[in-house]
Amino acid sequence: MSSTIWSVDEHLDDILASVRPLEPIELQLPDAQGCVLVKDVVVEVALPPFDNSSMDGYAVRVADVEGASEEFPAVLTVIGDVAAGSAGLADDQVVGPGQAARIMTGAPLPAGAEAVVPVEWTDGGTGEGPADGMRAHADAPEGATGEVRVHRPVTAGAHVRKRGSDVQPGEPALAAGSVVGPPQIGLLAAIGCSTVVVRPRPRVVVLSTGSELVQPGEALTGGQIYDSNSFALTAAARDAGAIAYRVGAVADDAETLRATIEDQLIRADIVVTTGGVSVGAYDVVKEALSSVGDADEPGSGVEFRKLAMQPGKPQGFGSIGPDHTPLLALPGNPVSAYVSFELFVRPAIRALMGLADVHRPTVRAELGSDKALTSPAGRRQFLRGRYDAEAGTVTPVGGSGSHLVAALAQADALIVVPEDVTSVEPGTETDVVLLR
Amino acid sequence: MSSTIWSVDEHLDDILASVRPLEPIELQLPDAQGCVLVKDVVVEVALPPFDNSSMDGYAVRVADVEGASEEFPAVLTVIGDVAAGSAGLADDQVVGPGQAARIMTGAPLPAGAEAVVPVEWTDGGTGEGPADGMRAHADAPEGATGEVRVHRPVTAGAHVRKRGSDVQPGEPALAAGSVVGPPQIGLLAAIGCSTVVVRPRPRVVVLSTGSELVQPGEALTGGQIYDSNSFALTAAARDAGAIAYRVGAVADDAETLRATIEDQLIRADIVVTTGGVSVGAYDVVKEALSSVGDADEPGSGVEFRKLAMQPGKPQGFGSIGPDHTPLLALPGNPVSAYVSFELFVRPAIRALMGLADVHRPTVRAELGSDKALTSPAGRRQFLRGRYDAEAGTVTPVGGSGSHLVAALAQADALIVVPEDVTSVEPGTETDVVLLR
Repeated sequence: MSSTIWSVDEHLDDILASVRPLEPIELQLPDAQGCVLVKDVVVEVALPPFDNSSMDGYAVRVADVEGASEEFPAVLTVIGDVAAGSAGLADDQVVGPGQAARIMTGAPLPAGAEAVVPVEWTDGGTGEGPADGMRAHADAPEGATGEVRVHRPVTAGAHVRKRGSDVQPGEPALAAGSVVGPPQIGLLAAIGCSTVVVRPRPRVVVLSTGSELVQPGEALTGGQIYDSNSFALTAAARDAGAIAYRVGAVADDAETLRATIEDQLIRADIVVTTGGVSVGAYDVVKEALSSVGDADEPGSGVEFRKLAMQPGKPQGFGSIGPDHTPLLALPGNPVSAYVSFELFVRPAIRALMGLADVHRPTVRAELGSDKALTSPAGRRQFLRGRYDAEAGTVTPVGGSGSHLVAALAQADALIVVPEDVTSVEPGTETDVVLLR
Repeated sequence: MSSTIWSVDEHLDDILASVRPLEPIELQLPDAQGCVLVKDVVVEVALPPFDNSSMDGYAVRVADVEGASEEFPAVLTVIGDVAAGSAGLADDQVVGPGQAARIMTGAPLPAGAEAVVPVEWTDGGTGEGPADGMRAHADAPEGATGEVRVHRPVTAGAHVRKRGSDVQPGEPALAAGSVVGPPQIGLLAAIGCSTVVVRPRPRVVVLSTGSELVQPGEALTGGQIYDSNSFALTAAARDAGAIAYRVGAVADDAETLRATIEDQLIRADIVVTTGGVSVGAYDVVKEALSSVGDADEPGSGVEFRKLAMQPGKPQGFGSIGPDHTPLLALPGNPVSAYVSFELFVRPAIRALMGLADVHRPTVRAELGSDKALTSPAGRRQFLRGRYDAEAGTVTPVGGSGSHLVAALAQADALIVVPEDVTSVEPGTETDVVLLR
């Protein structure tokens, strides 16, 4: 154990310098949601893949409807229907001079046709006034034959979505590093990708330590408290994008803890423990962690540190086992554990995912309390607060006590008081980490 | 079908007036993540449940250490250890005058003691200089007996977390309507709740319609395109908080569509379809939807509308089947479908969840393009854009074409051009819907 005091930034830098993004994996599109693309995706098909109609109407030759008006409509012979999903007109028919084909939105422009006249600009083949909509083929098969009166001219390409007008083969679709969200999944599907190569979601194993911990729903006896850290941090890990496994509470026994962690390594990309890191008690955790996996492997081992922060002074970080699985040992007080998770574990999870930006957004806001905040010299303090974006203020909730979980549940931000500041007057501008 | 043109707000109001929050369900804590609490949760245990030490050190009587200093330490007899998780000292021992008990962080303050002296203010029972940490009981069982020298006085209650100082029985823990996030899960666990009553995540069934649709990964033949809507909207539904089921593409056949939707009703709290709502083609969807479930049930039926918006003019909304399951029929163009989802389906999902705020955040931003935007009169236009929070600007990406899925994947915002505006000059302030 080092007796040096580490700064928050030094500890975080050490973690981020050690944690490498996970190896890529090819996943089905729906399973890749929220993951990061590993390489550029290049378009292999044109979008749209063929010239198609953007309206329901009639595919025509431009010269045939030149000068058409309601008074003097162009009268064209309807030679057939082109439905969406069809390859075009039947029997290799071509729209010749004086001819038209009835066409649905999304259907391919038939050979010979140069533009689409919307059905509203025609009589819909009824021989009556302007149509207000097209009847489906099933209801009006007769509309695919006979004559249609066109009331307005069109220019070449009108109401036609050109092949490749969205993307062309060879164009970049998505760049490496993109996060695969719903619109990206839509684009990948649209260009025919059923799978995509991404970094997988990290598997996070969360376990709390302490012989005093009892599972919620059971009865407390003397000296016992409910285990809350394993629940809160598993949820927080999931929220950060991980697949999280809650192991629950392990008693303060080095051998039990060692065996439990070793068992879990098979499904862990990162291990998070809470408790057992304060000066008096950490020997159990330290003893357990020093012998997990192969002790002869280089680069392994967990180091316990004192950080210049409040809450969250005692912290452990290192790697364990044959795969050098990263492990963060957080303090056991629920607020300390939660703040430590936000500051150190969340960035580590997001680094494993390969995300470029691993941090929560930080904004500047005016302190909205009616009295000054006090903070210990030489320690960066993180107070729970509520942020009001419109007013540009942040108001502390609860006190600085690290056991105030009730107040934590009302907070949506952390108020940061720098190391060299011991008092913050109301109205002072300060850094605020947004938690939502 | 009504031939009235509906405004975006009228359509949304109609949806939100019809969609009721789902019936509450009791869930295990981890399963309730992201859900909304149905009733106030009241604390039933005090937090902390007993007076306990906030430090590793010695539990003492205040009078015994009065005036203690490094030069003139108070010498106390150590009568035992109090470990975290224990009920106190063994054999109902009491800390009497001239006595102390070694105590670990979180352990209950033993009877007789009034405060805790941190180990750093003592010789740690070694008889030597000030201790820099406490050795664990396993390593130093002898420290639980003998003498300890205390170098500083303490006041009553020093380094003691009082029973109920965080919350008292009967106090409110969380209010109805709270979203159960990680800190809320932590609080609920801390007060012993293993389950919680919330509104469940809505089950959303997504299906795309169109005989032209082919699954990604397969080969395209003439007139075919890849199904992207069912992928994008399933992901978007999940992103909104739902449990989403992707049915995939159904051919333009009323009977097949009807049977498919009817089959899916068993697992649907809301059904979303895409395609088949434009003037020419919707008869298939309309015919299918009018006969799903029991047609004699009152309050059922899907209405098809034209909306004063671009993209997304044709929309269907109503309820189907014996349970009056809400159904939203979106247009088939991928960008139209996605924008419609954001504007109408996402709020519906969040209303089903019982969330108070169902909308994406909207901000004002300056148009950052180098040329004016044009927009059709009488229609509210939603253009895809990139929002720059620092600069307070939004820049359009891609054009207004509803098939521009590549541009959609680069966007993080929707630029809103009101119905009565036909041109927006660069630098003009406009409403922006943030998509992330």
